[in-house]
Amino acid sequence: MSILNAILDGHISTMGRKKIFNDPVYGFVEIPYGIIFDLVDHPFFQRLRRIRQLGLTNLVYPGANHNRFQHALGAYYLMSKAIRVLRAKGVTISEAEAEAVGIAILLHDIGHGPQSHALEHSIVSFSHEELSLLFMDRLNQEYEGRLDLAIKIFKDEHSKRFLHQLVSGQLDMDRMDYLNRDSYFTGVIEGRVGYDRIIKMLDVRDNELVVEEKGIYSIEQFLSARRIMYWQVYLHKTSLSAELMLIQLFKRAKELARKGKKFDVSASLVQFLEEDVDFAKAKEDPKWLDLFAKLDDCDIQMAIKSFIDQDDFVLSYLASGLQNRQLFRLEYKKTSFPKDYSDQIKNKLALKLKDTTKDNTDLLVFNGTQTNLSYNSQQEISILFKDNSVSPLSQIADSELGIKQIKKYYICYPKIKA
Amino acid sequence: MSILNAILDGHISTMGRKKIFNDPVYGFVEIPYGIIFDLVDHPFFQRLRRIRQLGLTNLVYPGANHNRFQHALGAYYLMSKAIRVLRAKGVTISEAEAEAVGIAILLHDIGHGPQSHALEHSIVSFSHEELSLLFMDRLNQEYEGRLDLAIKIFKDEHSKRFLHQLVSGQLDMDRMDYLNRDSYFTGVIEGRVGYDRIIKMLDVRDNELVVEEKGIYSIEQFLSARRIMYWQVYLHKTSLSAELMLIQLFKRAKELARKGKKFDVSASLVQFLEEDVDFAKAKEDPKWLDLFAKLDDCDIQMAIKSFIDQDDFVLSYLASGLQNRQLFRLEYKKTSFPKDYSDQIKNKLALKLKDTTKDNTDLLVFNGTQTNLSYNSQQEISILFKDNSVSPLSQIADSELGIKQIKKYYICYPKIKA
Amino acid sequence: MSILNAILDGHISTMGRKKIFNDPVYGFVEIPYGIIFDLVDHPFFQRLRRIRQLGLTNLVYPGANHNRFQHALGAYYLMSKAIRVLRAKGVTISEAEAEAVGIAILLHDIGHGPQSHALEHSIVSFSHEELSLLFMDRLNQEYEGRLDLAIKIFKDEHSKRFLHQLVSGQLDMDRMDYLNRDSYFTGVIEGRVGYDRIIKMLDVRDNELVVEEKGIYSIEQFLSARRIMYWQVYLHKTSLSAELMLIQLFKRAKELARKGKKFDVSASLVQFLEEDVDFAKAKEDPKWLDLFAKLDDCDIQMAIKSFIDQDDFVLSYLASGLQNRQLFRLEYKKTSFPKDYSDQIKNKLALKLKDTTKDNTDLLVFNGTQTNLSYNSQQEISILFKDNSVSPLSQIADSELGIKQIKKYYICYPKIKA
Amino acid sequence: MSILNAILDGHISTMGRKKIFNDPVYGFVEIPYGIIFDLVDHPFFQRLRRIRQLGLTNLVYPGANHNRFQHALGAYYLMSKAIRVLRAKGVTISEAEAEAVGIAILLHDIGHGPQSHALEHSIVSFSHEELSLLFMDRLNQEYEGRLDLAIKIFKDEHSKRFLHQLVSGQLDMDRMDYLNRDSYFTGVIEGRVGYDRIIKMLDVRDNELVVEEKGIYSIEQFLSARRIMYWQVYLHKTSLSAELMLIQLFKRAKELARKGKKFDVSASLVQFLEEDVDFAKAKEDPKWLDLFAKLDDCDIQMAIKSFIDQDDFVLSYLASGLQNRQLFRLEYKKTSFPKDYSDQIKNKLALKLKDTTKDNTDLLVFNGTQTNLSYNSQQEISILFKDNSVSPLSQIADSELGIKQIKKYYICYPKIKA
Repeated sequence: MSILNAILDGHISTMGRKKIFNDPVYGFVEIPYGIIFDLVDHPFFQRLRRIRQLGLTNLVYPGANHNRFQHALGAYYLMSKAIRVLRAKGVTISEAEAEAVGIAILLHDIGHGPQSHALEHSIVSFSHEELSLLFMDRLNQEYEGRLDLAIKIFKDEHSKRFLHQLVSGQLDMDRMDYLNRDSYFTGVIEGRVGYDRIIKMLDVRDNELVVEEKGIYSIEQFLSARRIMYWQVYLHKTSLSAELMLIQLFKRAKELARKGKKFDVSASLVQFLEEDVDFAKAKEDPKWLDLFAKLDDCDIQMAIKSFIDQDDFVLSYLASGLQNRQLFRLEYKKTSFPKDYSDQIKNKLALKLKDTTKDNTDLLVFNGTQTNLSYNSQQEISILFKDNSVSPLSQIADSELGIKQIKKYYICYPKIKA
Repeated sequence: MSILNAILDGHISTMGRKKIFNDPVYGFVEIPYGIIFDLVDHPFFQRLRRIRQLGLTNLVYPGANHNRFQHALGAYYLMSKAIRVLRAKGVTISEAEAEAVGIAILLHDIGHGPQSHALEHSIVSFSHEELSLLFMDRLNQEYEGRLDLAIKIFKDEHSKRFLHQLVSGQLDMDRMDYLNRDSYFTGVIEGRVGYDRIIKMLDVRDNELVVEEKGIYSIEQFLSARRIMYWQVYLHKTSLSAELMLIQLFKRAKELARKGKKFDVSASLVQFLEEDVDFAKAKEDPKWLDLFAKLDDCDIQMAIKSFIDQDDFVLSYLASGLQNRQLFRLEYKKTSFPKDYSDQIKNKLALKLKDTTKDNTDLLVFNGTQTNLSYNSQQEISILFKDNSVSPLSQIADSELGIKQIKKYYICYPKIKA
Repeated sequence: MSILNAILDGHISTMGRKKIFNDPVYGFVEIPYGIIFDLVDHPFFQRLRRIRQLGLTNLVYPGANHNRFQHALGAYYLMSKAIRVLRAKGVTISEAEAEAVGIAILLHDIGHGPQSHALEHSIVSFSHEELSLLFMDRLNQEYEGRLDLAIKIFKDEHSKRFLHQLVSGQLDMDRMDYLNRDSYFTGVIEGRVGYDRIIKMLDVRDNELVVEEKGIYSIEQFLSARRIMYWQVYLHKTSLSAELMLIQLFKRAKELARKGKKFDVSASLVQFLEEDVDFAKAKEDPKWLDLFAKLDDCDIQMAIKSFIDQDDFVLSYLASGLQNRQLFRLEYKKTSFPKDYSDQIKNKLALKLKDTTKDNTDLLVFNGTQTNLSYNSQQEISILFKDNSVSPLSQIADSELGIKQIKKYYICYPKIKA
Repeated sequence: MSILNAILDGHISTMGRKKIFNDPVYGFVEIPYGIIFDLVDHPFFQRLRRIRQLGLTNLVYPGANHNRFQHALGAYYLMSKAIRVLRAKGVTISEAEAEAVGIAILLHDIGHGPQSHALEHSIVSFSHEELSLLFMDRLNQEYEGRLDLAIKIFKDEHSKRFLHQLVSGQLDMDRMDYLNRDSYFTGVIEGRVGYDRIIKMLDVRDNELVVEEKGIYSIEQFLSARRIMYWQVYLHKTSLSAELMLIQLFKRAKELARKGKKFDVSASLVQFLEEDVDFAKAKEDPKWLDLFAKLDDCDIQMAIKSFIDQDDFVLSYLASGLQNRQLFRLEYKKTSFPKDYSDQIKNKLALKLKDTTKDNTDLLVFNGTQTNLSYNSQQEISILFKDNSVSPLSQIADSELGIKQIKKYYICYPKIKA
């Protein structure tokens, strides 16, 4: 035996033709060798190991250190289950389609930058969805067209719409995984979802995803869990406060960088601070994608550490607050905050900071609104009855399904002791 | 109402006089306001948020991104339980002692550097235990002697030995928490421990911790779980391989830095590369503790990224392997590897690398041994019987308790395709 | 040592002054020695071991074999937690009150007869609530008034209303336990409730139970979980069908027994078949309580087995269906079933059964309605804000809380093959 | 639509060609329509719903009310997984073989009588294994030979030995399920087994089941968990005490019945009390199998209730102890109890019972031994290495595997207050 020539990799067991990852949420996730495994092994995908799923939420829920790598594998796992269930019910899904929809879900978040969405609103001018497509195109070139069908499904350009709906829709494998996973790692058990039951109840009619009638209570619980996760976790006051501070920190840094200020941050990050990059630019010059692919959460965290020692008050104040978890207060209300409430806060703060011009003060008080992702009556979940008829969920559900989207106004500002 | 003056922090609910952290492992962890909370809030302790509990193990178990902050809170939680159980059984523990043992367990790992133990063996010349004491002394100064008793307990200098044993012993709250926690986040369910039962069975006789007879099977399972976690997780081949690569990478970097090479790494890290710091030095000049306290996992990860582009072949080869998860092969054996096996590997490798002098080759093949932490017959677990007699576990257990310590030889080297 | 004289019982560990039960839902449930333990040890309470919590639901959910004994201990466990939380927040609860509210929750279901509610609607003419009070009175005599306060709290006659609300109210420990427990044993994970969080958020204002604002999403999830458990489990079609069959079976048996028919059923059961017993009668003559206390699920199951061989067609048909799980079809609708739908079923059935007079057929087709326990706007959950103000939940919740009570019409009849 | 003619049963969803059972241990268990489903639906199998898996263990672990029906479905579920894994690794298993091994595991416990093993040692003179084969033969007649191959596999007469090993062997699906299931329902988490990992590691070499090297720690944990479950649950002192009391109760009843005493117990049970039935007799006259198939736990529990009021002191004493959970004390030792220890107990007891002849006393003190099921070095688990070599586990394991079988002596007698 020549073990020297063996090709097995340590963390993975070859069973049949599959590799196994330990996943605390589902037990084991199997990845078939071939294109799927090669994509997982690609540096673009490995980079997702270094990007936390929930950005700064770990400042509120200390367990929330899971990353987009795990989420992508988990969503792929659920997709494999869904495909198996649908085929067992007689839905025709070719091998090529099964592979393609697997690739589509695996790469659906490949364009995410560090710290979740925070950078999208500060140092770059494109969305992670746009970037995901750019990454897919690049990988498609590299793999000589093997991703063609996956990209069509991702863009909803394939005839079998239900495949796209499994990637992106009311009951897609993305949501199914992130709710479960975020619940597991935050410890907010109210977000756990009966994914197993829901997937077993999936079927297809007229090329659209439907859910068997028996699954209706699981669907209601899923919608309820999602609403709860929004307000309890994703839009949690303290978590949102940290994100707003981070956004403001990098907006400020970029502003100063554009004015010529030199920062001791990573070589890749510095370029995004000093130059405006929008989608058109990123698409045109491949260098931007390569640079972006080098960024991960550590570039941001090291930048925060280095900003602490900067002269600029706003930069240093925000950075030090983030580093040592001295976060701003955030208030939510269902109506907007009157101007004099915000003025009152600013006055107190200016006094405290001895900031006569209020230049700094203005940069340290944030207003805005947040709304949760709610059930979309434009894009209904379809329920399949035993007599083979199909109805939209909203017409038959007992409850109101959290259809109503909730909008909340917030104001966020430094804690000021009396 | 003047919410502006409220002192509540968002992620925490004041109940009575306690703050609550969500912990996916135990549900909720309560921290009393006062010195305990102040220590948790201290930048030294907040830093533990940025240091993963299991270093590079997440390259093998993708879920293993939990950090030392969570572990310290979890161990504190178990300690509170243990104190409550012991008091209910009539063991005298004063308020001051309860607080002190709480502080001791909270800070037991405060001296850990980034990437778990890897740095201890490469860029600095002291252990995390030594550093933990240095941190405690510093905090004790800051809190004007409030940590005196905690430090005595930590050093086993307090008359009630069982308090020290709860912090560091065969059944301490440290192990109880990390086995459970590492099991939860890796998904290796074999490591889960019946901590609840074990803690409920604790008692004290002659100032020593004992376990009621009824807990004996839980103890056996605990010892078995620990042994399994060692070989399945802590000393997992791929995980050890990554750690050895990291150690070698930083030894090399330090060697080059000592020779004058300048690296683009963080300001704090660079000082530890360019200068030899041992415990005496760290103790003498407080600047080293402050510098060390600025280091976290990101300093290391950013250094890895920057080493990829270095000219030095060994540096670049190791860094790029770690970044993109192209890890070395590691073989374990119960006997040592014969010299010609290692020579054979080196020859193949030198050929492949076109390394005629074998200078690089020698730096890329590692030999050594590993042993698991086993049941220590020097420091026995004592079992309490209904007739109030006490016996050491080894005399009464049905099984062999994994008393035998296992030593394994390893060899670790780059994967070489035929 | 004389182990012969030891008083320890095998399944229980004396820790301090408590006994421990293993509970798969919460881990360990501790019962203090004294009156609480004596009540648990009483034959009236031990009898609950032989009465399943969910009657015939195990025909639908095979895991649902848990009994009222476990539920009562579990609810007691949650009550102990709630008392600890409230006291820590400064709510005054005397030792006597804590014991009394513990007794009240322990005994809240003591009057339950076998097969859950089915017997209440067929062979006896009183409710389990009435009987619970009768049992408590009897035990109170036996323990010479030690249950006085517990009974006052149970009846809502004690000045501290919140204690009654913990036993019976929107957020009582009864519901909190049964939702969790039924979820655990049925495997319907959608019913799991964040009991830990909710209990930690409880407080008292103006003698009424309130919930801190931070608990609001947990409350919403609790209400959603409860609604789901109603339709997915408690009023599940097949489960309801089995219960209706059982009720009809025993109504029929009683009718025949009243006419002089002798059945080979247990000595206790036979008396309830041959005589009409209402609450007044049960209250007057203590023999009825003693007889009732001898009944458990097995009396019913053995009766079913013996009815199979009876001549009466209805009796034998229903008994054999229950024994071999050949259950009737049940249809639910939100509107009532038109008479000719029901006639059509009866005609088909009569034809099949060759039942020209339709005497049997009429006894084998059941109509009725069911409604779920919904949020009661008469008896609101109160939310406590940081500024110490209190509002009813319905005024501030984002969602509609499942306030709407759902009523469903059902028709239930034998499955008839074409 | 004619819902009247639908064939769907309420608790089961037809998906593709499968029925789904909710199982709290695994989530969902799928049963294919056809012979497998027909067997599950058969009264012989439905009877398993009324036989608890762990007999009287629920007197110690209140959650242990699960039955053999659930266990059989669970073992079938694991078998389906194992077959899928083996086929994916290239092991040839025909459709007929897959069905047969599924039937074999489903029916492996079909011969179990009520109260687990207790009756086998008192009122009948055959083992449940013998009876399982008798039931299979009867079903095979009914299904006209469809069970031929299943029976061959069950008896280890099929050429592919590994199929038999999956049903009955060191790592069979029976054990894998009952350890997990008993752990789930008792709450003894130390018994949980990494079944998922173990099954994924199964393979076949030379017609024998082997386990991939990577699974070795899971195997060790499995063996350790099993040993713990034996002493913590299956042979728990109080649980064994209850079983011994039950055996003695029915031996006594049978003795009296054989002498002409008439008991008020069920019609089926009475025949086994009044007549000696051994395997030969049961095989010869099919009436005995039919009678046996009518027995379930309730026949026994009702008999206990009726024995309470019997004149015979031993009968009444044992019955009343079992009914109200006043169980005998049981002591375990690793050496036999000296005669004078037992005499001392009997003397005290006789004094207390005023039993001058000691006739009753002798019937109320039990001696004996128990041994746990241990790793059988005669029938080794084989480990498969990457180089395709196979070794017996005992040669390579780090630990001693609990190979040593533990024998314990017990003495069991009524609790006697001083």
